[in-house]
Amino acid sequence: MSKDPAMLNAFNPDASHALSDHGRALVEKRTRLLGPAYRLFYEEPLHIVRGEGVWLYDEAGRAYLDAYNNVASVGHCRPEVVAAIAHQAGVLNTHTRYLNEGILNYAERLLATFPRELSQVMFACTGSEANDLALRVARRHTGGTGIIVTELAYHGVTATVAEMSPSLGSAVPLGSHVRTVLPPDGYRGGRNGEADIGAAFAREVQRAIDDMLRHGVKPAALIVDTVFSSDGVFTDPPGFLREAVETARRAGALFIADEVQAGFGRTGSKMWGFERHGVIPDIVTMGKPMGNGHPVSAMVAKPDVIEQFGREARYFNTFGGNPVSCAAAMATLDVIQRDGLQQNAAKIGTQIRDGFRALAERHNIVGDVRGDGLFIGVELVRDRATKEPATQETAYVVNEMRRNGVLISSTGIRGNTLKIRPLLPFTAENANLLVDAAGEALRTL
Amino acid sequence: MSKDPAMLNAFNPDASHALSDHGRALVEKRTRLLGPAYRLFYEEPLHIVRGEGVWLYDEAGRAYLDAYNNVASVGHCRPEVVAAIAHQAGVLNTHTRYLNEGILNYAERLLATFPRELSQVMFACTGSEANDLALRVARRHTGGTGIIVTELAYHGVTATVAEMSPSLGSAVPLGSHVRTVLPPDGYRGGRNGEADIGAAFAREVQRAIDDMLRHGVKPAALIVDTVFSSDGVFTDPPGFLREAVETARRAGALFIADEVQAGFGRTGSKMWGFERHGVIPDIVTMGKPMGNGHPVSAMVAKPDVIEQFGREARYFNTFGGNPVSCAAAMATLDVIQRDGLQQNAAKIGTQIRDGFRALAERHNIVGDVRGDGLFIGVELVRDRATKEPATQETAYVVNEMRRNGVLISSTGIRGNTLKIRPLLPFTAENANLLVDAAGEALRTL
Repeated sequence: MSKDPAMLNAFNPDASHALSDHGRALVEKRTRLLGPAYRLFYEEPLHIVRGEGVWLYDEAGRAYLDAYNNVASVGHCRPEVVAAIAHQAGVLNTHTRYLNEGILNYAERLLATFPRELSQVMFACTGSEANDLALRVARRHTGGTGIIVTELAYHGVTATVAEMSPSLGSAVPLGSHVRTVLPPDGYRGGRNGEADIGAAFAREVQRAIDDMLRHGVKPAALIVDTVFSSDGVFTDPPGFLREAVETARRAGALFIADEVQAGFGRTGSKMWGFERHGVIPDIVTMGKPMGNGHPVSAMVAKPDVIEQFGREARYFNTFGGNPVSCAAAMATLDVIQRDGLQQNAAKIGTQIRDGFRALAERHNIVGDVRGDGLFIGVELVRDRATKEPATQETAYVVNEMRRNGVLISSTGIRGNTLKIRPLLPFTAENANLLVDAAGEALRTL
Repeated sequence: MSKDPAMLNAFNPDASHALSDHGRALVEKRTRLLGPAYRLFYEEPLHIVRGEGVWLYDEAGRAYLDAYNNVASVGHCRPEVVAAIAHQAGVLNTHTRYLNEGILNYAERLLATFPRELSQVMFACTGSEANDLALRVARRHTGGTGIIVTELAYHGVTATVAEMSPSLGSAVPLGSHVRTVLPPDGYRGGRNGEADIGAAFAREVQRAIDDMLRHGVKPAALIVDTVFSSDGVFTDPPGFLREAVETARRAGALFIADEVQAGFGRTGSKMWGFERHGVIPDIVTMGKPMGNGHPVSAMVAKPDVIEQFGREARYFNTFGGNPVSCAAAMATLDVIQRDGLQQNAAKIGTQIRDGFRALAERHNIVGDVRGDGLFIGVELVRDRATKEPATQETAYVVNEMRRNGVLISSTGIRGNTLKIRPLLPFTAENANLLVDAAGEALRTL
């Protein structure tokens, strides 16, 4: 648990022989100028110079099918979004202390995608900032400080959010007011292998609450990434969140749905991850794909939840909700809705999972295929009965697929789940290419 | 001290009769969609639809000379920056887990503007995020938690940074590890009216350290906005920071220079505010004008200061240092350097201060004219001997100038200092217009 799973496949500077001379020079320059905090994906890092649609291109002109980056969600350099940014940047870019229609028009369009209880929105620039704001709001509203997150949750990198992001590893201590719970793992079951995932997850939440109260910590929020991405991608059965949310609310805590990864149609069946569970969160946060790569994020909430915070504390984020950010976000939402990308995510996601299930028939190492829409987890195990994690094999598959021109990563506490998040405009042909590349990697294991 | 000084001039929704029908409709829509946390500048809020150079335009086509917004520092919709954003957004926008030359080229150019000890840079999206990261780094490096800020400091809005931003008002509690000190006020003197501002400020810092230690809190950092913007704009005499920085370091604390407002040439005499004090910070943070409105920020540090944090905690900010942000920042820096905007800030800033000093000869209410380059404070007092703050009069001047088409604001704990931050390409003619509008407002007091 001391390593970010995404980093299990990270470049090891000691292995820089795998790089071209130019690549090695870039790595050295990076270390010199940016210091030791930055990591590179893959045993052989990529030097990316261009993006278009579902493809990224390296300096030699080689194309990579992007089945990982959920930020450029509607396609790299999507022309409609680029045009919207270029136009608005040339007309006006200022802040929310003047009246401007762009933010209001976008707010209206965004809120229309939510249940009507969630009727107000505040803007920031990153998912970290949105989650940080959600915490400030939850604390003010409940008067509590206690936070419940899953075992390997990732919610961001501000000081407050990092201390409730156990996936950052043991070198980043959790806050004394933070409790972790086992994720709703439909493959391995609850703590004692329970089959009722919802009940098991709710019991975990109740244990966390009991422990908090025993320590004199008043609960403020249960926050989950609604696809449990860093925990290993857990989406089924739909509805499993309901009981846990009720449990948290009985203790006076709010339910915060972190949609930074799941949101904006990626899960196919719904626009937002929480919807598939039939719950209405008190607060929803979003970011990454919101502006297709432009830094914009938001927090949507029930009005009574932000009332006290708004009145007493106020909130001004210099760049948050600026006209260019809102134009980028509006163009992105336009493309999602006009091109039916949520429906495409549902269709192509099913095709990809079917493809992996077909691979499972030939490769015993494929233990579980799960996810919804274009958020997919494929768990690799050495033995289907014992479910022994195939961690090294997973790293091999990720790196082998990268060598073969397809970009994915891995996730989960054991690092043995392929993390697959294709861009939303993936075609059936792109999906075949992805599954074939995975099949080829599994074949050469 | 319970109000953000910038908000003393804020729109009061109860006074919406001052608005046009359309303006009133926008205000109502804003309250409905964005909730109660957002504030508008001026008794009569502006509905801004376009920006160009040093001008903003409202929906009726009326032009406003922008002598306030330090974000669009090289001019609203500056064509070179817009072109750089549009170009890069159409080529590639991805993250730091792939190799990319844009971030390295910019890092090299940016670091060249710093003393050579400050040789590594990390990227984020907002000034709040940069300060939040600086705190995480300072805590890790020193093993301490204690933070010293000035009485009315503003450093940002993440939970951790808000609790060390007393300017957010008493509704946002300070952290128990935070100590405030009186700012280095060259007009009113130190706590006992001391004339040696540097010695008085250092004594304040020592008092804060003593109090921290008495409470078992280990000092981590002294952080100051190097022009003390929200405290009232304090820049003179150059060098006054030295003794306080030495005091903090003797106690094991780092010195963090918050250049989010002061940086990138605004102070005229130097590129960075700390330089005029002859000190070399351990960490420098920057944001607002860095990308001329594009959300990009950074933290520059001595390598030994970030070494442990980088190795143990790592840092990945999805949008931080992305190719478009770096292109925007590079174009902005290009314009500043090629057009000699730092030198222009020095020249025009002097002209503006001279203009206000001429006004002081006719208007006794002008108690002090200060600042450096295009960061200017003009303190208004009812009596030059007692220095009784002219708070209401200051609000009148700000609102009257807005009615006459010139945008400024106010600052300081008494809300009686005009806060003037013209865009860097201000011409002599723009400066005359600004001073004339101020003179007209003072005349009609």
